[in-house]
Amino acid sequence: MTTITGCETRDVRFPTSLTGDGTDAMNTECDYSSAYVILQTSDPNLTGQGMTFTIGRGNDIVCIAIKEVAKRLVGKKLEDLFANMGKTWDYMLADPQLRWLGPEKGVIHIASGAVNNAVWDLYAKSRKKPLWKLVSDMSPEEIVNSTAFRYISDAITREEAVAMLKSREAGKAEREAKVRQLGYPAYVTSAGWLGYDDEKVARLTKEAVTAGFNHFKMKVGQNVQDDLRRGRIIRSIIDDPQYLPPGHVPRDPATLVGKNAGPTGAVFMIDANQVWDVPQAIEYVKQLEEVKPWFIEEPTAPDDILGHAAIRKALKPHGIGVATGEHAHNRMVFKQLLQAEAIDVVQIDSCRLAGVSEVLAVLLMAAKFGVPVCPHAGGVGLCEYVIHLSLIDYIAVSGTMERNVLEFVDHLHEHFIYPCSINAQGRYNVPNNAGEGYSIQMHDSSIAEYEWPNGSYWVKSNAEKAKA
Amino acid sequence: MTTITGCETRDVRFPTSLTGDGTDAMNTECDYSSAYVILQTSDPNLTGQGMTFTIGRGNDIVCIAIKEVAKRLVGKKLEDLFANMGKTWDYMLADPQLRWLGPEKGVIHIASGAVNNAVWDLYAKSRKKPLWKLVSDMSPEEIVNSTAFRYISDAITREEAVAMLKSREAGKAEREAKVRQLGYPAYVTSAGWLGYDDEKVARLTKEAVTAGFNHFKMKVGQNVQDDLRRGRIIRSIIDDPQYLPPGHVPRDPATLVGKNAGPTGAVFMIDANQVWDVPQAIEYVKQLEEVKPWFIEEPTAPDDILGHAAIRKALKPHGIGVATGEHAHNRMVFKQLLQAEAIDVVQIDSCRLAGVSEVLAVLLMAAKFGVPVCPHAGGVGLCEYVIHLSLIDYIAVSGTMERNVLEFVDHLHEHFIYPCSINAQGRYNVPNNAGEGYSIQMHDSSIAEYEWPNGSYWVKSNAEKAKA
Repeated sequence: MTTITGCETRDVRFPTSLTGDGTDAMNTECDYSSAYVILQTSDPNLTGQGMTFTIGRGNDIVCIAIKEVAKRLVGKKLEDLFANMGKTWDYMLADPQLRWLGPEKGVIHIASGAVNNAVWDLYAKSRKKPLWKLVSDMSPEEIVNSTAFRYISDAITREEAVAMLKSREAGKAEREAKVRQLGYPAYVTSAGWLGYDDEKVARLTKEAVTAGFNHFKMKVGQNVQDDLRRGRIIRSIIDDPQYLPPGHVPRDPATLVGKNAGPTGAVFMIDANQVWDVPQAIEYVKQLEEVKPWFIEEPTAPDDILGHAAIRKALKPHGIGVATGEHAHNRMVFKQLLQAEAIDVVQIDSCRLAGVSEVLAVLLMAAKFGVPVCPHAGGVGLCEYVIHLSLIDYIAVSGTMERNVLEFVDHLHEHFIYPCSINAQGRYNVPNNAGEGYSIQMHDSSIAEYEWPNGSYWVKSNAEKAKA
Repeated sequence: MTTITGCETRDVRFPTSLTGDGTDAMNTECDYSSAYVILQTSDPNLTGQGMTFTIGRGNDIVCIAIKEVAKRLVGKKLEDLFANMGKTWDYMLADPQLRWLGPEKGVIHIASGAVNNAVWDLYAKSRKKPLWKLVSDMSPEEIVNSTAFRYISDAITREEAVAMLKSREAGKAEREAKVRQLGYPAYVTSAGWLGYDDEKVARLTKEAVTAGFNHFKMKVGQNVQDDLRRGRIIRSIIDDPQYLPPGHVPRDPATLVGKNAGPTGAVFMIDANQVWDVPQAIEYVKQLEEVKPWFIEEPTAPDDILGHAAIRKALKPHGIGVATGEHAHNRMVFKQLLQAEAIDVVQIDSCRLAGVSEVLAVLLMAAKFGVPVCPHAGGVGLCEYVIHLSLIDYIAVSGTMERNVLEFVDHLHEHFIYPCSINAQGRYNVPNNAGEGYSIQMHDSSIAEYEWPNGSYWVKSNAEKAKA
């Protein structure tokens, strides 16, 4: 009987603040970081990896919280945990003293997510399936039992969820075959960071069009005129057929309805990373109508459900939608965003929510409310995680992928043993290794180099700073 | 020019789990704890104390986060910080890397609150006034400048806030004199913990009536029949004039309208500490109509604004209101609770919100929306803090106190140099020492005894456990 015997953490930080990658109106310096956990078991050949994502300082605090959360699992039998992953999640989150520090938000919640993801990684590896396949192959009842269901029954009951999943069961095999062949639609943010100059934005946008991408996102919020100028540059490139790759297959126009697609079918999105108050957001974004964004992402505080609803209502006559979720801290926030009709797109974050079990809750609610899930990614490890979640959504839950699009940023994938990848049509490939679990295991060499503060990179960098 | 020179933290934990104090439907074991901070200055006679409250495990994590937040203040001149406390708050919260760990919620937010409170403590001490007096004496413009204003301008603008405060200015001196004479209304929770048996509940309730209290709260949520039985016991005592103290002055009946006051004017409240889903909450609380609670507190997840609104609407025909706020993690949550008409009572927590500057934001919004603020207290240090906040609310912001009531729990006050106290009419006395600041400084001897894990109490307790 295999049991969990212990937990180690690694505070891994990449010096991305040096390059301006990841800059936006709120996050002016980011060292993409991973609070990384390794769950050990009594089987020497089976470990579970998980992580949460931070942008630098405080990653150590999350590592300490992870150890505190993981203590609850030590000594537990794996098969008992796997038998009902929803109960396992409830148990993991139910320490009253740790719960007080959230509840279900902030450091303790993202730490719980790292640990929950490591348990799911163990589960998938023990069944020799990638995570998405493990979950997609479950029966409707098993999926619902694996879900964090507390506090959402006013939006969807277990019975409704089972019935919805049953209605999608017949098409599962066909959808799996289709996505294996086509890949899952992606979009790029890499071109439009605030830290880049116009020339770099134009070059990166052309490269992205040529790489087969169809959706493009730009950061906004420091200055309307700058945003309009940069938006026009991007729009002029993505609307121009000359940059399309040879053999370009346009996306089905039916899936682009309401997305402000241009003449080539390209879709443009903007992201403000929470810089505005509600009235400011409305005034500012109206002025960007000319560049026809599909949505404004994170226009205001991520907790402000009614604020997002007010912004969405005010921007509707201007043809601009609203998206959020990267900082939506638990399933109750998504529940209300859906109930209040506050968003056009559900942008779950694989690390902000407390692991796969809580993500399943949001996938079920979004499918019931008919709102597409387009996960947040980028940073480090997020792209590796989210392709699994979007595959689960497509194959087992919502049954659609062409109305969806999954964020892709081409940073730091080389540190993972099973990095995500993009095909020539700008779509994510399907992870397909029996042993990859949730695809989040890093190379030991990467950890040795970037572990903070004693990895070889940081030792060298600090020595150089001391000299200067 | 006095500057901040450093910060120390103390992880202080009291073994309250041994007595069953503080047990409720969600928090079945609590060691009331303080993540305590001392801000040092270049003036050897001036230190600032602050804390946040936790219930045990994880208090060390908050202490680490406090140090990280306080780093931003080291080297700053006190008078620059005091000159615009709203800007100081924005600056404290604006580290993009630490912000990611919230944002504005969980460990990093309560740690920010401890530090912000320590800065306010310094400010008050430097002016030789208790904190409530420092703030109440400010001009309307100064109060608004001291407030965390980001993300709330759709609910109240700075101009509206100034105008509202100006309209209350004329009565400030009179209200201050009145509350100094009468004290501020309090209520007790100590009688109704789930961990107590019926006999203890009856005895403590009688004692509370005799001590002059008029409002009484009971924990509910594990079993309807038990709750009804205990509720009937409390109701029978508080409605019976025989237990009233000699010379009892009943509260103004006009302030008790809508509060389900009984024949003696006593008011009864119930608290579920988040145990239910929304439909469950409605079904359960309806069954408690017989014992006539003024409100159900924390019926569901504290993030669920729309859920609270739905519960309030459903319970209205049963004469039962809704209260929450002890876990409402920032001013945006309170903003929405008010906008959605989700609550009858705003229960701010002095430690959950990030310090006095964020509390001011909620006081201003609640006054504008006309909803009374009745702070959460108990635990350790909360009662010491909140009397200041309610005095600010009464004297400078809302101008009312008789419709309000401030929680009081008679635990652990002996550890503070300036403990809060209650007069013979069951009302908080007004803190009145020039040097007490925000009243949160602990005795060195208490810290030496209860610091975790090396204070004398814990060393002894662990040695005894090791022997057993």
